[in-house]
Amino acid sequence: MQSNCSLTKVYSFSAAHRLHNDKFSDEKNFEIFGKCNNLNGHGHDYSLELTIGGEIDIETGMIIDITKLDELVGLVVDELDHKRLDIEIDHFSEVRASGENIAKYLWDKIVVLIPKPSYLSHVRLWKTSENFFDYKEGK
Amino acid sequence: MQSNCSLTKVYSFSAAHRLHNDKFSDEKNFEIFGKCNNLNGHGHDYSLELTIGGEIDIETGMIIDITKLDELVGLVVDELDHKRLDIEIDHFSEVRASGENIAKYLWDKIVVLIPKPSYLSHVRLWKTSENFFDYKEGK
Amino acid sequence: MQSNCSLTKVYSFSAAHRLHNDKFSDEKNFEIFGKCNNLNGHGHDYSLELTIGGEIDIETGMIIDITKLDELVGLVVDELDHKRLDIEIDHFSEVRASGENIAKYLWDKIVVLIPKPSYLSHVRLWKTSENFFDYKEGK
Amino acid sequence: MQSNCSLTKVYSFSAAHRLHNDKFSDEKNFEIFGKCNNLNGHGHDYSLELTIGGEIDIETGMIIDITKLDELVGLVVDELDHKRLDIEIDHFSEVRASGENIAKYLWDKIVVLIPKPSYLSHVRLWKTSENFFDYKEGK
Amino acid sequence: MQSNCSLTKVYSFSAAHRLHNDKFSDEKNFEIFGKCNNLNGHGHDYSLELTIGGEIDIETGMIIDITKLDELVGLVVDELDHKRLDIEIDHFSEVRASGENIAKYLWDKIVVLIPKPSYLSHVRLWKTSENFFDYKEGK
Amino acid sequence: MQSNCSLTKVYSFSAAHRLHNDKFSDEKNFEIFGKCNNLNGHGHDYSLELTIGGEIDIETGMIIDITKLDELVGLVVDELDHKRLDIEIDHFSEVRASGENIAKYLWDKIVVLIPKPSYLSHVRLWKTSENFFDYKEGK
Repeated sequence: MQSNCSLTKVYSFSAAHRLHNDKFSDEKNFEIFGKCNNLNGHGHDYSLELTIGGEIDIETGMIIDITKLDELVGLVVDELDHKRLDIEIDHFSEVRASGENIAKYLWDKIVVLIPKPSYLSHVRLWKTSENFFDYKEGK
Repeated sequence: MQSNCSLTKVYSFSAAHRLHNDKFSDEKNFEIFGKCNNLNGHGHDYSLELTIGGEIDIETGMIIDITKLDELVGLVVDELDHKRLDIEIDHFSEVRASGENIAKYLWDKIVVLIPKPSYLSHVRLWKTSENFFDYKEGK
Repeated sequence: MQSNCSLTKVYSFSAAHRLHNDKFSDEKNFEIFGKCNNLNGHGHDYSLELTIGGEIDIETGMIIDITKLDELVGLVVDELDHKRLDIEIDHFSEVRASGENIAKYLWDKIVVLIPKPSYLSHVRLWKTSENFFDYKEGK
Repeated sequence: MQSNCSLTKVYSFSAAHRLHNDKFSDEKNFEIFGKCNNLNGHGHDYSLELTIGGEIDIETGMIIDITKLDELVGLVVDELDHKRLDIEIDHFSEVRASGENIAKYLWDKIVVLIPKPSYLSHVRLWKTSENFFDYKEGK
Repeated sequence: MQSNCSLTKVYSFSAAHRLHNDKFSDEKNFEIFGKCNNLNGHGHDYSLELTIGGEIDIETGMIIDITKLDELVGLVVDELDHKRLDIEIDHFSEVRASGENIAKYLWDKIVVLIPKPSYLSHVRLWKTSENFFDYKEGK
Repeated sequence: MQSNCSLTKVYSFSAAHRLHNDKFSDEKNFEIFGKCNNLNGHGHDYSLELTIGGEIDIETGMIIDITKLDELVGLVVDELDHKRLDIEIDHFSEVRASGENIAKYLWDKIVVLIPKPSYLSHVRLWKTSENFFDYKEGK
């Protein structure tokens, strides 16, 4: 939805992952994923910036009820928190748990949970303080 | 105005507010605004990121004279600084001093002050480091 | 306690306050406290860095049980969160709610709650990102 | 290119510059550029956020090979690092080394180096933590 | 060594770990380590602040040659980077890879590598932006 | 002075410098100072954390009058701001403008300006976000 105003809330989680593709040789896996291909995994502190755009409600002054938003997003984030993503989250057994794919995963999970799906306008996922990934659909 | 380049300047102010709607019962006010409904108010350190987009002047290399911009925006920000917004700023006696509404208020005040109003392209208001609000019109 | 290792945990709260001394004239109050003397208060997002120093337990690898620490400190911080300190917290009706005094207050409240008081080694209170206050006793 | 996903990588460099226009009188130079007109230059720690938007490769989960991106951008950034921009970088002998122009310069240099130029979607240049400049073309 | 001046350099690495003690029952492990006991590990982006205190050399103006310091510390940090600490680093097969113990490990590794061991004055290890661990000996 | 409480205020300035020693050959200068030896200088955004320790005044709740502190420190910081340190600041024509020496310079300048010199307890100078320098005397 095209609107003038949006709010963004920051959420955090810590997780481990290994980037690997069974179709590739060991050499190619290392060439493409480098240290991220390490067999036993490694980890990051992820920070999710979730943006909700929409009309400001005149009575409350707010676009969305933040408490409810926190509950819904908490469900999605808690599932990833303190996990080894490529082993414990089904979606990432086939799909690489790259920043790009985790950002898309968060969008797909959250868009079906929030009351007005068209209000979801942007997902930004920080992976280390030097690196972030943006995802949004249909704008 | 659609342009390739923009500059953003960060400004700060500290203020108190109470979120409340006289039309609501006490219960509903608490349900909707939670701790932010506290009678005596509470406060935040706000950070404003103001974005000006436009042509780069060939002689100066700049989109806008930053010193003049600082003076104009300073007028608007100083009015809010160290105030109880819902008591001391007329606009917020009727309108909830939520992040969304403060962002819109800043846009409305600044757009009539700057030399080329069409250059104003984005207002972002941080409230705590976990929460920000974006406002822009007519893009 | 003098020890080689310490852990520090960060906690946040938002509050309003007014700096004022009834013994001073209005002029003197304004001269000393400036904008912080504003009758209706103003506010900040405070960030508390709490440091616990002590022996590393061999079996757990930890100085203190963080979950329990969070519970105890949460009690103290929640009491201040979203409050007008000089009106709603008894201690600050007489004592100025300055950064210095809030830091001391946090030390005094926390030192009597934690299992090994001698482990409390440092309280740092950030008030805006340009200003912090340190408090520690008997080192 | 319009795509749903992008990645952003942060790069840093430190440089000195003087803002000055030979066509202006000394008075006008000082009026326009203020302290930045200081004859012997002054400096900043710049931080570049480079955004690449495009399709997520199914096999790798990535939009672009980050190692190769780092190499290419490294060439451009190293040329500016620890330099006096208006004296040592030809481009800035005529063109003011303002934030706006450095952002555009980085875009122009990088867009011809990366494998898929249409993937370059955004350049953000931080100059101090209070000031940033955005540049993008043809979106 | 007691000196008036010190320099601190920041280094980063990303790693996974699991907190677990074979001597404890599954219940006790979960009670003590919580989510950090997750079998497949989880991860963090660690940030190391290394402080070197000592005399300022008159000819160079520096306490230590930073390039050499970076090389030495790089050896220690690279060994941990992108690893599963409790599986791949011998020291952490017996000793819990807690923030406290990693900080001590870094001290022990670095103190024997730097030219003047007495100059090592402080190790601070950030694990998430809400949590850090300090380690220093013999001061 | 040994006291339980201190306040720290953050100040910023931007400056250029060149690290060089006339007594060294060109090769040795480059070997020791690397890119920082660049003839035309380079620059940084410095951030000064100034710590004042002392008794909390009962009437004001404050250790020191911050407005007066800002004025005094402003005098010292403004002298360095937007300057080429090794050319324009006498002290640095002979003494290398390294982080260590700038920290010491700030201490020496400020300690003679503040009302109670013994209250000055710590100077921290950030030079880039990866590097800081601490200076304190007689504690």
